[in-house]
Amino acid sequence: MLTIDQQIMKKEEGTIITPAGFQVAGLHSGVKRKRNDLGIITCDVPANAAAVYTTNVIQAAPIKVTKESIAKEGKLQAVIVNSGNANACTGKQGEKDAFLMRSAAAEQLGIPEYYVAVASTGIIGLPMPMDKIIPSIKLLEPAASDNNVDQFNESILTTDIFTKSTCYQTTIDGKTVTMAGSAKGSGMIEPNMATMLAFVTTDAVIESSMLQVALKEVTETTFNCITVDGDTSTNDMVLIMASEKSGNEGLTPQHREWSVFVELLRKTCVDLAKMIARDGEGATTLIEVEVNGALNDKEATQAAKAVVGSSLVKTAVYGADANWGRIIAAVGYSKAIVNAETIDITIGQVKLLENSQPLAFAEEEVSEILNNETVKIVVDLNIGTGTGVAWGCDLTYDYVRINASYRS
Amino acid sequence: MLTIDQQIMKKEEGTIITPAGFQVAGLHSGVKRKRNDLGIITCDVPANAAAVYTTNVIQAAPIKVTKESIAKEGKLQAVIVNSGNANACTGKQGEKDAFLMRSAAAEQLGIPEYYVAVASTGIIGLPMPMDKIIPSIKLLEPAASDNNVDQFNESILTTDIFTKSTCYQTTIDGKTVTMAGSAKGSGMIEPNMATMLAFVTTDAVIESSMLQVALKEVTETTFNCITVDGDTSTNDMVLIMASEKSGNEGLTPQHREWSVFVELLRKTCVDLAKMIARDGEGATTLIEVEVNGALNDKEATQAAKAVVGSSLVKTAVYGADANWGRIIAAVGYSKAIVNAETIDITIGQVKLLENSQPLAFAEEEVSEILNNETVKIVVDLNIGTGTGVAWGCDLTYDYVRINASYRS
Repeated sequence: MLTIDQQIMKKEEGTIITPAGFQVAGLHSGVKRKRNDLGIITCDVPANAAAVYTTNVIQAAPIKVTKESIAKEGKLQAVIVNSGNANACTGKQGEKDAFLMRSAAAEQLGIPEYYVAVASTGIIGLPMPMDKIIPSIKLLEPAASDNNVDQFNESILTTDIFTKSTCYQTTIDGKTVTMAGSAKGSGMIEPNMATMLAFVTTDAVIESSMLQVALKEVTETTFNCITVDGDTSTNDMVLIMASEKSGNEGLTPQHREWSVFVELLRKTCVDLAKMIARDGEGATTLIEVEVNGALNDKEATQAAKAVVGSSLVKTAVYGADANWGRIIAAVGYSKAIVNAETIDITIGQVKLLENSQPLAFAEEEVSEILNNETVKIVVDLNIGTGTGVAWGCDLTYDYVRINASYRS
Repeated sequence: MLTIDQQIMKKEEGTIITPAGFQVAGLHSGVKRKRNDLGIITCDVPANAAAVYTTNVIQAAPIKVTKESIAKEGKLQAVIVNSGNANACTGKQGEKDAFLMRSAAAEQLGIPEYYVAVASTGIIGLPMPMDKIIPSIKLLEPAASDNNVDQFNESILTTDIFTKSTCYQTTIDGKTVTMAGSAKGSGMIEPNMATMLAFVTTDAVIESSMLQVALKEVTETTFNCITVDGDTSTNDMVLIMASEKSGNEGLTPQHREWSVFVELLRKTCVDLAKMIARDGEGATTLIEVEVNGALNDKEATQAAKAVVGSSLVKTAVYGADANWGRIIAAVGYSKAIVNAETIDITIGQVKLLENSQPLAFAEEEVSEILNNETVKIVVDLNIGTGTGVAWGCDLTYDYVRINASYRS
């Protein structure tokens, strides 16, 4: 019998329109100087929808609008998204503007307003340039074409360097089920839904409430385990839409292939989360921290997040410096339960610390490992069986450059 | 009648030896390449002592030794301190070395070992170069001279740019009471006793247990309110010694001038804390964040710490960018209770946000304020009377440079 992992296949050429029923478009409306800044996802039918949002108390207007839309029937047929302006801290006018974006998109597509979600990312506190947004919404022509996918994926970026997209397929009830996602980073990224937008599409048959259960579970160990700078944005949103075109039986936790579906979603979200971490502002390296031997999974994840979030670990990776002292120090202040005498640390294939004692190792070898595009740090606490992974990136001159001059 | 504040005078020329009974020395032992790296504080008599330590679970060997010394009688007559090597994660040998440093100093001074505290700061995980430390301890000649103070203050630094010292005087029971301190930063600085060492001397008459009460109270709103990079070190220590030479009546919370003494200590610690923040690695600006109108003081401090710890706020200050959106976002994720609609933000004299709505302001004027050596950000939550202050510094290219190459 195949393991769950073996039942899920990566579709290298797949995109957000590969699941049956979805179309996209993207264009340059003028909110940003040059790059695309307005995009849309549409579905043939009202798709079952679920979302998780930023935990920041200060939430941007589009979050409010999207929550209201989904609350109505649990369905979405379109997502209108812009980059360049976050429409956050913009008061009553900002709310009005977000609702106007929603109604303009609904009118354009001839669907009810409450089938439309709104997402925005960019600068906080500036009024939305509605004179650019509204006329441009009318110019969006969603289609299931590769060119449109490229246009859409670009339209949601801010300081991101590359577009982020992934696609997986599996079989449930003998039917092919496809899932795909597009996302953007890349500053204000922290556990707990930080500045990022991720849109996931699937053709699986599953109700909104069940989608929400799966999304919430998966978010905990994927998007909530990445950090770029420890800041949590006002605009984060992960949104999933199910067109229900695949023909499987309705998925619930009682369905014998529920765990396959959850794993399909997890793989999709892990890919997007890792791409966001790799493309953190100014980043040159994706850092993956795995903590094993913790009291439980939650403690392991907590320790992994502390290590990957440490400015000192991040700069050490950037400097290709095998500074395991900073790693153990981060584990020490993570508030995870540890035994100070039993910690092992491995970077790549090289063990640097055993039972909290330094081992002899070749600095050059580890330095070479740290110069790779992906660096894996494994910490074994040796007190239990809990395990957890977190992802982040190095801290570089470019992070400072980008953020010292973001608005100028 | 004079307020407490008016009863305490800054002694501009005062140093750690201004309180009666103390001497210091410092020299270059060879742990570091060039700068002084070994220092000592001594007292004529066994001084009443108290200390607070890092909250990191991974604690360096010297912390253990110092705790053991103070536990014996609550008295210290000397502190031996080195920079360049933290003696952390150095196992049984590290512990042995820290105890050896203690006994060498005790022997040199002809005092019991348990009257000696040990403090170390520098690289984690390298064995202590005892061949350099031990012979050099014998060369230390403590004296109450300005030259010795300079030598000592330099000997405790790591990546610090400048030495940190302050002194205050007051009158208690009609007697002059003096307090002074020396400290070092400047990486791995975070609330909860982060990489820093601070040594405070006073000639006040006060028992060790009472000293501990005052120190713990004051640390909460001073050293625990500074952050450089969010990392909490393995070696932090704030240590206070009272020579009891001033002749006041023994200080306890019941003493009518107890609050004057606490304020004397608070002023001393605030000065040192602010100097540590200003001298954060790569910093060009001291950022002071004051939060008012919170539900209570604790919530205010929590919000202030979140703002001053935000990488995005720190880079914005470096870039002289009036990016109040990042300030309100940090308040929003601080977990302090806030009303999203009632937040005011002021930078310098310029109000940028009122009731969470942007005000028109001159970008150039605020940009000029942000270019000052000290920047004050005031956030008013307008929901209560709680107030709190935190200090930090901007995040610059030099922070990355220093930490990417710390060990090389």
